[in-house]
Amino acid sequence: MLGKVALEEAFALPRMHDKTRWWASLFAVDPDKHAAEISDLVGQRIKYMDEHGVGYTVLSYTAPGVQDVWDPEAAQSLAVEVNDYVAGEIKAHPDRLGAFATLSMHDPEQAAAELRRCVTQYGFKGALVNDTQRAGAEGDDMIFYDGPEWDVFWAAVTELDVPFYLHPRNPTGTVHERLWAKRSWLIGPPLSFAHGVSLHVLGMVTNGVFDRHPRLQVVLGHLGEHIPFDMWRINHWFEDVKKPLGLACQRTIREYFRDNIWITTSGHFSTTTLQFCMAEVGADRILFSIDYPFENFADACVWYDGVPLNLDDKLKMGRENAKRLLKLPAFKDSEARIA
Amino acid sequence: MLGKVALEEAFALPRMHDKTRWWASLFAVDPDKHAAEISDLVGQRIKYMDEHGVGYTVLSYTAPGVQDVWDPEAAQSLAVEVNDYVAGEIKAHPDRLGAFATLSMHDPEQAAAELRRCVTQYGFKGALVNDTQRAGAEGDDMIFYDGPEWDVFWAAVTELDVPFYLHPRNPTGTVHERLWAKRSWLIGPPLSFAHGVSLHVLGMVTNGVFDRHPRLQVVLGHLGEHIPFDMWRINHWFEDVKKPLGLACQRTIREYFRDNIWITTSGHFSTTTLQFCMAEVGADRILFSIDYPFENFADACVWYDGVPLNLDDKLKMGRENAKRLLKLPAFKDSEARIA
Amino acid sequence: MLGKVALEEAFALPRMHDKTRWWASLFAVDPDKHAAEISDLVGQRIKYMDEHGVGYTVLSYTAPGVQDVWDPEAAQSLAVEVNDYVAGEIKAHPDRLGAFATLSMHDPEQAAAELRRCVTQYGFKGALVNDTQRAGAEGDDMIFYDGPEWDVFWAAVTELDVPFYLHPRNPTGTVHERLWAKRSWLIGPPLSFAHGVSLHVLGMVTNGVFDRHPRLQVVLGHLGEHIPFDMWRINHWFEDVKKPLGLACQRTIREYFRDNIWITTSGHFSTTTLQFCMAEVGADRILFSIDYPFENFADACVWYDGVPLNLDDKLKMGRENAKRLLKLPAFKDSEARIA
Amino acid sequence: MLGKVALEEAFALPRMHDKTRWWASLFAVDPDKHAAEISDLVGQRIKYMDEHGVGYTVLSYTAPGVQDVWDPEAAQSLAVEVNDYVAGEIKAHPDRLGAFATLSMHDPEQAAAELRRCVTQYGFKGALVNDTQRAGAEGDDMIFYDGPEWDVFWAAVTELDVPFYLHPRNPTGTVHERLWAKRSWLIGPPLSFAHGVSLHVLGMVTNGVFDRHPRLQVVLGHLGEHIPFDMWRINHWFEDVKKPLGLACQRTIREYFRDNIWITTSGHFSTTTLQFCMAEVGADRILFSIDYPFENFADACVWYDGVPLNLDDKLKMGRENAKRLLKLPAFKDSEARIA
Repeated sequence: MLGKVALEEAFALPRMHDKTRWWASLFAVDPDKHAAEISDLVGQRIKYMDEHGVGYTVLSYTAPGVQDVWDPEAAQSLAVEVNDYVAGEIKAHPDRLGAFATLSMHDPEQAAAELRRCVTQYGFKGALVNDTQRAGAEGDDMIFYDGPEWDVFWAAVTELDVPFYLHPRNPTGTVHERLWAKRSWLIGPPLSFAHGVSLHVLGMVTNGVFDRHPRLQVVLGHLGEHIPFDMWRINHWFEDVKKPLGLACQRTIREYFRDNIWITTSGHFSTTTLQFCMAEVGADRILFSIDYPFENFADACVWYDGVPLNLDDKLKMGRENAKRLLKLPAFKDSEARIA
Repeated sequence: MLGKVALEEAFALPRMHDKTRWWASLFAVDPDKHAAEISDLVGQRIKYMDEHGVGYTVLSYTAPGVQDVWDPEAAQSLAVEVNDYVAGEIKAHPDRLGAFATLSMHDPEQAAAELRRCVTQYGFKGALVNDTQRAGAEGDDMIFYDGPEWDVFWAAVTELDVPFYLHPRNPTGTVHERLWAKRSWLIGPPLSFAHGVSLHVLGMVTNGVFDRHPRLQVVLGHLGEHIPFDMWRINHWFEDVKKPLGLACQRTIREYFRDNIWITTSGHFSTTTLQFCMAEVGADRILFSIDYPFENFADACVWYDGVPLNLDDKLKMGRENAKRLLKLPAFKDSEARIA
Repeated sequence: MLGKVALEEAFALPRMHDKTRWWASLFAVDPDKHAAEISDLVGQRIKYMDEHGVGYTVLSYTAPGVQDVWDPEAAQSLAVEVNDYVAGEIKAHPDRLGAFATLSMHDPEQAAAELRRCVTQYGFKGALVNDTQRAGAEGDDMIFYDGPEWDVFWAAVTELDVPFYLHPRNPTGTVHERLWAKRSWLIGPPLSFAHGVSLHVLGMVTNGVFDRHPRLQVVLGHLGEHIPFDMWRINHWFEDVKKPLGLACQRTIREYFRDNIWITTSGHFSTTTLQFCMAEVGADRILFSIDYPFENFADACVWYDGVPLNLDDKLKMGRENAKRLLKLPAFKDSEARIA
Repeated sequence: MLGKVALEEAFALPRMHDKTRWWASLFAVDPDKHAAEISDLVGQRIKYMDEHGVGYTVLSYTAPGVQDVWDPEAAQSLAVEVNDYVAGEIKAHPDRLGAFATLSMHDPEQAAAELRRCVTQYGFKGALVNDTQRAGAEGDDMIFYDGPEWDVFWAAVTELDVPFYLHPRNPTGTVHERLWAKRSWLIGPPLSFAHGVSLHVLGMVTNGVFDRHPRLQVVLGHLGEHIPFDMWRINHWFEDVKKPLGLACQRTIREYFRDNIWITTSGHFSTTTLQFCMAEVGADRILFSIDYPFENFADACVWYDGVPLNLDDKLKMGRENAKRLLKLPAFKDSEARIA
């Protein structure tokens, strides 16, 4: 289909090319190609979009990004640099490219202020944060955003009426390093990424973030990390067992997924998994995405275009849901029909 | 249907009643009932089996059990005690009850010897181990079974031709305690259990355990923990991306699931998730189970009996696969028809 | 869930009690009960609705009804009688009951006029017609509504902005009687009903009815009769094979299902079939229904309330789609939440 | 995958080329190509098989074939000619090609004798019959095979231990001709074919054919015609409603599908429909097929090879079930692995 929207699409800063290249060497078959693609924001990227029927892309700074910077000042400085950079790059292409704000998550007030600046000054479409914020003098602490001290931040997100994309990051710390040592291939997409985000968003659920901010919209990639698969089980334990024992959240997990949570297809181009998520989460809450350049346009788009599906749901997940959630402007093929 | 087989069914030692009762108080709505049920092996249990069409149950010692005992001698002593105890309890009911061996996993040779004793002396149906073995002077080490030093153990499992059930356990250690502190409701079935086992079995895959022991049969509960949901993604990264970079395992993840891995429905009574697993794993590799007394017979059996499904697959998953895998004797309703 | 809407719900005229009773004897286990239930419009029916969470029911005259009357005058007279009767019965319950107009389909102009009268005078929600109109001096002709002579009728349906429910009827004629003689059990719900309607609606598609009346909304019961199962195959032959040879319709079968066709769950309380239809047709075009009193409230409602599904889609199919399509007034539990 | 087996694959007699060419002109985009393909048994066909991973094909004479010949002597003569012809053609390729017997179905004894001759003399794999046998002086009668007079035939089928493929044919007779006149595009694959076969096989069910011949194996194409979609509904009416009123068959529809009925993918290359049939019928009873040359190898094989599915079920449906049902000899890639 034409006019698809993609919203978990990474870029890196050109000045960090060496680090980007080294990072790519850890997982990419062709690290040079990967480093080139992630550092390109408008050239090759728009060519791929044209080639594969993607009308609009929302860019975000690559993981772990600012969430890996445990010095608060350095983190804030990097976030601002990233936001100013991407705003400048996409300015000439408002009908093709948007951006999610990059945020230092050391301080809720500061994070709220930077998000507000990006949305009001640059028209950014929301924020994308890479799971917990690394913190502490040695960087071995992790900040979760599910406590009441973050209410000021969530209030700003809600007031600005933009979504918050909770993206995975690598597990860190010495325990993890030891555990993963012999299993390095498992780090990342095949398994570990999803676990941290799943824990974090369930923390938000059980600690009442969505009860205090009922209009908050959170986006999860990779078809919802591991939560859709556990939806029945979470619901079963929360409703039948835990709530009698005191679990505080006011609604059911299915209600939070209906009212507050979205999932994207980033990096998970599986027809059976998508079908399962359509049953558990619903087509009104699923958004197409690629995860470029960690994944390529062809894998994502040839798959999605060919998924056996009614036209309503295909259009909603491929484009219309994103237009509604992100309040997108007119873009290339944003009204194109499918048959 | 009549004559179902269940194989993730827990018991506790009567002498540990106080600990069992305290443990139950952490999650059970009625801790006294839970403690009574888990300490009963043949009375109430067989009544429930009769009431809900379960013909045969394979018992196993409750988690974390011996895997939480970091002193090797204490662990071995407890394992032997547990095995002798359950063998005595079930002896009078060979047509209704079997057992999985409880093993101390500090020493591969010792674990192999105890398994051999249980299978040859008592006719146990295999082993059930609760993820990693806690170890070290302070109990903050974890033993994984995916290294070459465990080949002697896997060789014994294969030679005895019995399955190995890899069951979850609670995460341990100070890092985890800190992380989970405010999210205690998430510990256990809703999320955390599945992650450790998923990591462990993928470690076995990527470190070549199944290549060196191609007849080894491993069982995972809870509809495969998180792996079926990630099957496409694991396959994509292993086959398309990682193997060019050196991943050592010789076959695809789908082949290991076809040849070496089984999943059960324990604690996951979801029709949509079962349907999804039937697509990804296949009905020939799925086994009904309950997870009693953490779950109750009615939730599991009323659900399974009513799952909308062809008769072939319902019979296979409900009984016939288990008869084949565990080489069960004739038991109550073991040949009953369904319509 | 509370506040469900049901729209393939039959009634009979009290003055025809003997015929109703005889008809019931052909298929009902308890013909007296069936005859009593179908002749009751507001008493027992509203009790069942209260008991099973149905907030609003749209009544329609039972099949084959007027479509079996081959004398045009008798047919028109019966249609008017039926419409006046049901209007009087439901008048006191505008927040619980509505009706579909019964139409003689001998004459397009006349059918349009009677529909207009019912919608404007009585507030009926649309029309329900039982497949082809029996016609001819001996009653062995059948009128299809897919020719240009029916444009005047479809124009009226569209102008009135109400849906047209195409309901099955028994096959008639000597050939059928001979064929079915030894297979009488097959007449009706298990198979034959669906074939006539499927043929009729595909005739409407291929003869351009929806191209000439692009806002026309047609409802099919029984989860779309046989068309969803053949959706791929119809699309394959229409798009890949037939259209090169001259098929006239301008859009794809999938587009007509997105823009013009709805399906209901009447008499088809199957989770797997519903899931399949959600993939092929989409939850935005599926409507809960019962087919009472041929089916009972409990079978339909206990099933639907328990279908494993996200809350969005359950609410849409159970109530919200119907509110939108039929422009329903406020009714009992019409805003009730589900969790 | 390599080594797939296909079993609804048509051929025509070369001497009937003109009729074949005319017939092809009714539906084929390129009638000359179609006529050439259907008249070729071993040349182009084996090339396509090699190209698309089909190891073994079972040939059958094209529909309506002998079932359209209402003169009994002419029908028998044509059947014998067809069988002798195909036997001669495939003799040199026992590792690639087999055949289903073509039968005149005017006389049960005669049909049984010809089947026996084909199976014992030529090694044919079973029979394929095109629905009802046209009969009567004017050809407007139809013979069904569900009465007791056909027991002698079904006894022979069972004794020979070969399957019986019940294939669709066009509806015939003046009533049908009139009905279909304006809807000619609907004749054939998109809808009508399936109805006759569905009726016929349900007649066999309800008239007790499978009760009297419990080992009889019947194969239906096109993913079971319309029966899987109606499985719940048939079961509901047979078990819950009809049997109290006297339905004679002794088992449930689901049991007949488990014990006596197979379905193939011929002409129905839909992932969602296959998934639905796997739930309702089960992978142990589904067989890959193409319906060449009405469908092409690429559409069928590229689809099947790419269906998202566990390896067990893919192999069973693609090859292993057919090897078991048809007792096939070793053929090209008959032991090839899939990954």
